[in-house]
Amino acid sequence: MTLVLSGRELARQIEEELAVEAARLKNSGVPPALAVILVGEDPGSHVYVANKIKTCQRLGIRSVDHKLPADTTQKELETLVEMLNMDPAIHGVLCQMPLPSGLDGQRIIRMINPAKDVDCFHPYNVGLLAMGHPAFLPCTPAGIVEMLVRGHIEVAGRHAVVLGRSNIVGRPMSILLSAKGMDATVTVCHSRSKDLAAITRQADILIAAIGQPLFVTADMVREGAVVVDVGMNRIPDPTRPSGTRLAGDVDFDNVAPKCHAITPVPGGVGLMTIAMLMKNTLAAAERSLAQAN
Amino acid sequence: MTLVLSGRELARQIEEELAVEAARLKNSGVPPALAVILVGEDPGSHVYVANKIKTCQRLGIRSVDHKLPADTTQKELETLVEMLNMDPAIHGVLCQMPLPSGLDGQRIIRMINPAKDVDCFHPYNVGLLAMGHPAFLPCTPAGIVEMLVRGHIEVAGRHAVVLGRSNIVGRPMSILLSAKGMDATVTVCHSRSKDLAAITRQADILIAAIGQPLFVTADMVREGAVVVDVGMNRIPDPTRPSGTRLAGDVDFDNVAPKCHAITPVPGGVGLMTIAMLMKNTLAAAERSLAQAN
Repeated sequence: MTLVLSGRELARQIEEELAVEAARLKNSGVPPALAVILVGEDPGSHVYVANKIKTCQRLGIRSVDHKLPADTTQKELETLVEMLNMDPAIHGVLCQMPLPSGLDGQRIIRMINPAKDVDCFHPYNVGLLAMGHPAFLPCTPAGIVEMLVRGHIEVAGRHAVVLGRSNIVGRPMSILLSAKGMDATVTVCHSRSKDLAAITRQADILIAAIGQPLFVTADMVREGAVVVDVGMNRIPDPTRPSGTRLAGDVDFDNVAPKCHAITPVPGGVGLMTIAMLMKNTLAAAERSLAQAN
Repeated sequence: MTLVLSGRELARQIEEELAVEAARLKNSGVPPALAVILVGEDPGSHVYVANKIKTCQRLGIRSVDHKLPADTTQKELETLVEMLNMDPAIHGVLCQMPLPSGLDGQRIIRMINPAKDVDCFHPYNVGLLAMGHPAFLPCTPAGIVEMLVRGHIEVAGRHAVVLGRSNIVGRPMSILLSAKGMDATVTVCHSRSKDLAAITRQADILIAAIGQPLFVTADMVREGAVVVDVGMNRIPDPTRPSGTRLAGDVDFDNVAPKCHAITPVPGGVGLMTIAMLMKNTLAAAERSLAQAN
């Protein structure tokens, strides 16, 4: 029997815990608040931001929503970030990526106060993570760790293979899994890796984060492996009214029967990411409370 | 025939190139300068610092030497760092680790101006490295990359296994080798890894950085592999006047015959590390020249 690690169920568990924490902070005089900046009309970004705001509301976190037109200048955006950096009532600041062309996203990421960088995208926070003293954990990798821990998946001493080396998932995931405390042996593969299947077949834990629909096929997975699918790809599906459906990086139907555990798409890692964003926001609020006392 | 990658020879080549660059900077009105802080009487640290200063002199880099007594306070040390951070005639600042007990080395590392952090130990610079936009490369990993490149060792698409996950070598080495441009498939192993030999035997390139003398034996290495030995261990040797000798992490005598290429200890990676520190210092001076113009 394959264990299907439900992001829906685990995220709900975590949200319940976080709602208690949010209420405690509010009662201590620090109502936690997350500022979300969204520039332009990218439909995907609008969906993500709407989900973040909804989750804030469910948890009792104040969301401060800045929707800016696509023709916002770099200067205007930076002024807004500076204002949010300085506002003591705001604990987390994020700017939804990608930005419209002409705006410098890297510059914005480096401007956000590291103490409010709940996405963990600022180089200072990425460095602390790589050095083994993280202030925040990056949301998607942290969500995956929560799924493994709450799914009672042993990580220490096991071989984790990470497919992908992006700054959002692959890179921080490989750092986190091989860090002290997690203690996996970690292999990072990517588009330039040779004989990929020979490597992925060695994985006790396989993390697929390459953004290629149904890339991981059954022959690439060892019997009894744990497979985590970070892919969020839209593929044609004439049976759906929209003509498309969401597919992960893993050929779930054929891979799942071989696995000890697997995460589905949708309903998997994606939901955990937002829960971890909320967790980071509460951690930032908690630190601001500790500093005030 | 095994290729022995001589750090002595490669470092000399690089030093010649860097001396030209140092002279050019001096003629442009920016005599490059490295400030080195050494606290206390640790004999190993004194040897390292003496070597750094000697190399500066050979290359025409001004070394500004701050030797402080072991009872220096944190406040005194921080005041010195602040002064060096602000001095426009100083391009690189490093504080030799470890510090005497009672002093907070992590705090000092985080205080050094990232633009002068030629060791690449500041979290901001470690983060930029992890994100694929390095301002400086960490010295030992950068030295290893130079050895591979100048030894005509192909890296892209090949499997590199890094033994060790320290902040100085293993962690940044694994990031650098798997980054875009280097493109190796990289596995990070450590003290908690299981069945280590089965993993190291898969390595096209094996980097040993665990600090255990002669740990890597011939049965752990594949025929034709490239082996890089970062170990600097002092082991008993009654045949030497001192009663000890320097040994790497690799059992060189038995491993070398199997290898395509290997680095010796001493005379290997260690010498490259200082050359890379000089390279970073010149890069920092070059940037300060570019900003002045």
